Amino acid sequence: MKAKVYITLKNGVLDPQGKAIEHALGALDFGGVNEVRQGKMIELDIAESDEAKAKSQIEAMCEKLLANTVIENYAIELIG
Amino acid sequence: MKAKVYITLKNGVLDPQGKAIEHALGALDFGGVNEVRQGKMIELDIAESDEAKAKSQIEAMCEKLLANTVIENYAIELIG
Repeated sequence: MKAKVYITLKNGVLDPQGKAIEHALGALDFGGVNEVRQGKMIELDIAESDEAKAKSQIEAMCEKLLANTVIENYAIELIG
Repeated sequence: MKAKVYITLKNGVLDPQGKAIEHALGALDFGGVNEVRQGKMIELDIAESDEAKAKSQIEAMCEKLLANTVIENYAIELIG
């Protein structure tokens, strides 16, 4: 089963990478762009075929490795 | 209008970051995980309220700055 994991910084956590993108867009004359935040997306293929089990396994992966839950949120999307 | 841009490596492009995650998951006893690929997600808020115009502006941003179109694909999702 394929899955996508989206990892984003929590609200209130400074995002210098997002700020850099925002400034670079401004410098390239793309005006009116605000609140740029950069996150990560991880695609993976998990052997488990049961949706609930796959999701709980991926949650465990996020808690232990993929996300820093002090400053990051994660969302899991299962794909067929 | 808020938008999310997903930037992924094209098929066939080596993804050492994804491989590192795959090995680390294996070392943590998460078996059966394959084809791990890491991409980027960029959230932004664009002043343009017309959907078609917003999308074409974001496409231009991707082509010029956000994605390296030689090795990366991008997908744009507009949110309300």
